[in-house]
Amino acid sequence: MTRFRFQVAATDGKARTGAITTPRGEIRTPAFMPVGTAATVKAMMPENVRATGADILLGNTYHLMLRPGAERVAKLGGLHRFMNWDRPILTDSGGFQVMSLSDLRKLTEEGVRFKSHIDGSEHFLSPERSMEIQKLLGSDIVMCFDECPALPADRPRIEESMRLSMRWAQRSRDAFGDRPGHALFGIQQGGLEEDLRAESAEALRGIEFDGYAVGGLAVGEGQEAMFGCLDYAPGQLPQEKPRYLMGVGKPDDIVGAVQRGIDMFDCVLPSRSGRTGQAQTRFGQVNLRNARHAEDPRPLDPDCTCPCCTNYSRAYLHHVHKSQEIIAAMLLTWHNLHYYQELMQGLRDAIAAGSLDAFVAAFHARRAEGDMERL
Amino acid sequence: MTRFRFQVAATDGKARTGAITTPRGEIRTPAFMPVGTAATVKAMMPENVRATGADILLGNTYHLMLRPGAERVAKLGGLHRFMNWDRPILTDSGGFQVMSLSDLRKLTEEGVRFKSHIDGSEHFLSPERSMEIQKLLGSDIVMCFDECPALPADRPRIEESMRLSMRWAQRSRDAFGDRPGHALFGIQQGGLEEDLRAESAEALRGIEFDGYAVGGLAVGEGQEAMFGCLDYAPGQLPQEKPRYLMGVGKPDDIVGAVQRGIDMFDCVLPSRSGRTGQAQTRFGQVNLRNARHAEDPRPLDPDCTCPCCTNYSRAYLHHVHKSQEIIAAMLLTWHNLHYYQELMQGLRDAIAAGSLDAFVAAFHARRAEGDMERL
Repeated sequence: MTRFRFQVAATDGKARTGAITTPRGEIRTPAFMPVGTAATVKAMMPENVRATGADILLGNTYHLMLRPGAERVAKLGGLHRFMNWDRPILTDSGGFQVMSLSDLRKLTEEGVRFKSHIDGSEHFLSPERSMEIQKLLGSDIVMCFDECPALPADRPRIEESMRLSMRWAQRSRDAFGDRPGHALFGIQQGGLEEDLRAESAEALRGIEFDGYAVGGLAVGEGQEAMFGCLDYAPGQLPQEKPRYLMGVGKPDDIVGAVQRGIDMFDCVLPSRSGRTGQAQTRFGQVNLRNARHAEDPRPLDPDCTCPCCTNYSRAYLHHVHKSQEIIAAMLLTWHNLHYYQELMQGLRDAIAAGSLDAFVAAFHARRAEGDMERL
Repeated sequence: MTRFRFQVAATDGKARTGAITTPRGEIRTPAFMPVGTAATVKAMMPENVRATGADILLGNTYHLMLRPGAERVAKLGGLHRFMNWDRPILTDSGGFQVMSLSDLRKLTEEGVRFKSHIDGSEHFLSPERSMEIQKLLGSDIVMCFDECPALPADRPRIEESMRLSMRWAQRSRDAFGDRPGHALFGIQQGGLEEDLRAESAEALRGIEFDGYAVGGLAVGEGQEAMFGCLDYAPGQLPQEKPRYLMGVGKPDDIVGAVQRGIDMFDCVLPSRSGRTGQAQTRFGQVNLRNARHAEDPRPLDPDCTCPCCTNYSRAYLHHVHKSQEIIAAMLLTWHNLHYYQELMQGLRDAIAAGSLDAFVAAFHARRAEGDMERL
C-alpha cells in the first residue's frame, strides 16, 4: 500500500515545491484545498472541482457530524463515496467551528459540550471523539482537535489555550493510533507570541506528526501581523514535513505565505465570494454586481480558460447574479477555483524554476494595474 | 440557407413523430423544451441541458424584456450568444406572464400596459412590440401575442378573449414580416368550448402560420378536461404543421397529449420540482425530502444513466437538499430533464415502431408499481 509521504522537489528562498503522496493520489504543493463543508463544494460538481486542478478537498467535521452525521456517512461507505470525490480529503477537527458557530459551548479539559446551530441538539467533541469522527468519515489527512482564541486576546489566555491544545494534541495522537495510508497533522498555536509558538512547535515535534499546521491565524489580526508571525512560525516546524496554514486566504495572503514556507492552504473565499458576485482574477477582485458590467461584452478575463471566461460575458454574469440565478454561483465559483489553482500552479512552476521573486513581482504589478484602469 | 420545415416520419393513431428543421439545428418531435426563463435553465449549464437530449429551449419574453432588456440582449449579440446556447430557441409572447405575474395591468384593443413585478417600472406589450422583442432576442420560433383567461371562465369572456387574440394573431403576422429561417406560430384559444376552438383554428388557418399552439390549457382545468379538449383541438389545426401544447406538463399529461397528436411541449416542472427536492422518475415522483431516504444507499433510479443516478445515493440527495446545498438543485434538475428527454425518446421510438399503445401501457404500469412498493 502507498504510504503517506512528502517530498520537496525544489526550494526558492524559504518557499518549497513538491508533492504529498497518498493512497488516493498525489497532492502537488504548494496546494490549495477547496472547502467542501457539508459534503459538497458549494455550487460545483466534484468532477469540475477536479478539472480546475484541485488535488484534495477539505471537509468540515463540525458540519458533517451534525448533518448527516459521521456514523451515517460511514454506513454509506465514507465521505469519498458519499460526495463522489475519490481523491484525498483533509478534515478539520471541528474545534474551530464549535467555537465560531455553535451555541452554549462549555469548554473543559475533557473537551467541548455544545448545541448544534442547526437544531439545538446537544453534542460533545473531544480529541478522542474528533479522531473517531474523522475516521468514520474516512479522512485521508486528519487534524488534531485543538482550541483557538480569537485575536486579539491577552497573553495568559493565548498561553493557556495553547497548552490545552498541546495536551489535546497528545490525546489526538494516542487516539488516532496506527493507520497506514492516513496522516495526522498537529496544529501549532501561540497567537502572535514567538516564544509561545516555539513552545508549541517543540511540544508537537515531541509527539511527532505527519504534517504540521500553523493554526490560530487569519482570525482578525490582519495581513501584516499574520506575515510577521509567518516570518518565524514555519521555521519552528520540521522542514521535512508539510506545513499547512489553516483558513488562508486571499490570493496575496497565499503568495506571501508561500514565500514564507507554507505548503498547504484552504479557504472558503473563492467559493463564498463567487456566490456574492465577486470574481477573483489576476487583476484583483471584480465585483460583477456593479452596474458598469451590465452591457460589457468582454469576458471576465480574456486569458482565462475556464468555462465562465470562455463562454460568457461580464454582462451575462451581471444579469444572472442580479436575477439571483443559480448559474451565477456556478460560473463564478468555477472561475474563482480555476483562478486559485492557476495561481498555485504558477507558484509551483516559479519555485521549481527559481524565479519566485519575479513571479511575485508580476503578481503584484498586475493587481496594481487592475486597480487603476483594467477593470 | 436552411428553411424552417416540419416533416412527419411516422404516425401511430393520432400520434406523430418527425423533425422540425431550422438553421440552428433539428428538433426531434415529439419534443420537450426545457424552460430557460431568464436566459438560463435554472441550476444547469447549457451544455448539460444539451447532454440530456434537449434540441430546443424556451425563453420568456416577459422576463427578458424586464431584465436584462431585449435591446440590451440584442446589443450583446442576441439570446443564443448571451446564454451560450447555439441551438434553436422558442420564445413565448409575454402575454401569459403579463397576466399571471405583473401588477396593475390595463388591457385594451391595442395591447397591455403593466408594471414590472421586479421594480414596478411601467411597460407596454402589444402584438407589434412582442414581435419586435422576440426579434431582438433572436428567437427561432416566435409566438403570437395573445390573451388568455384563467379557467374556469364564462363563455362570453372566453369568446371575447379568443376573438381579441385572433385579431392580435393577424397583427402579429403582419408585424413579424418575412424572416427566412425564423418561424411564427399561431395560438388557438377558446377554452373548453369546441365550437370556439374551431372558430379560432379557422381564423389562424386563414392567416397561415409555421406552426400552431393549443393555448389556454393547463391553467387549472385538470387533466380530464384538458384531454377532453385535446380529443378534438389538434385535429382542428393543420396536419402538416407542428402542434405545440404550451406549458404542459407532468409526464402523464405529455404521454396523453402525444397520443392526441401534440408535437411540442414546454414546462417548468422538471426544473422547478428538482429545486424543491422532487425527482421525476419512471416510477413516478419521488420526494427526496422524506426521511425514509436519509440512509438509503440506492440511486434514485438504478437504470438511469444521468450523473445524479450514476454517482449519488438517495441518502446524499436527501442530505444536500435538507442542507439547502446548491448541488441538490443541480443534480435533481439534471436528473429530471434527463428523464423527460428519455421519455420523449421513448415516445418517438414507440411511434416509429407502431407500438405506442404498448409503450403507454408499460408507462402507466411502472408508475402504478412505484406507488405501491418500489419507492
